[in-house]
Amino acid sequence: MPIAETPQPPYTAVIFTSTRSAGDNGYSRMLRRMESLAAEQPGYLGIESVKDGLVGITVSYWRDESDAAAWKQVAEHLVAQDRGRQVWYDEYRVRVANVTRDYGKG
Amino acid sequence: MPIAETPQPPYTAVIFTSTRSAGDNGYSRMLRRMESLAAEQPGYLGIESVKDGLVGITVSYWRDESDAAAWKQVAEHLVAQDRGRQVWYDEYRVRVANVTRDYGKG
Repeated sequence: MPIAETPQPPYTAVIFTSTRSAGDNGYSRMLRRMESLAAEQPGYLGIESVKDGLVGITVSYWRDESDAAAWKQVAEHLVAQDRGRQVWYDEYRVRVANVTRDYGKG
Repeated sequence: MPIAETPQPPYTAVIFTSTRSAGDNGYSRMLRRMESLAAEQPGYLGIESVKDGLVGITVSYWRDESDAAAWKQVAEHLVAQDRGRQVWYDEYRVRVANVTRDYGKG
């Protein structure tokens, strides 16, 4: 996983922590479609995702909160979110956060 | 990984995305110590961490930015950070972010 090449803060992070239910049930295909669709949205800055079996953390980065909120309302994404709640995830938490500073190596 | 039981926003998230270098070199022991030490700090709310081989995302949650900043300055943690830069990580990014809303399932 490459580290997302985000600009200087401020920008918005959407932290999605989840435990999947057993079985694929169309999840993998929808995930690829959502990653591709997200990257086309206004204000999209990048995504980082790590999974270990059924648990995962995905962080998507956006220019601001309104761009993140607009992505949440994209029709095809609303369908995926509904299926996520009903079928794919045993539990998840979404946290919308405004990045104030960042630093690192590499 | 249990999802952290954070309170109602606002609170602070520190998103740590990394790629480890090869070999343990004392990393696993220090990680356990740091997780234990972090949990003793004022304002600590919880931690979520997922690794897949050498890549990982860890998100720690804090009451506010000043609590997160204080943890960064704890002496034993400073030593670990230095060793992280020098030995354990090929690359990493730390993003400090203020959570404004959250929602989920389960």
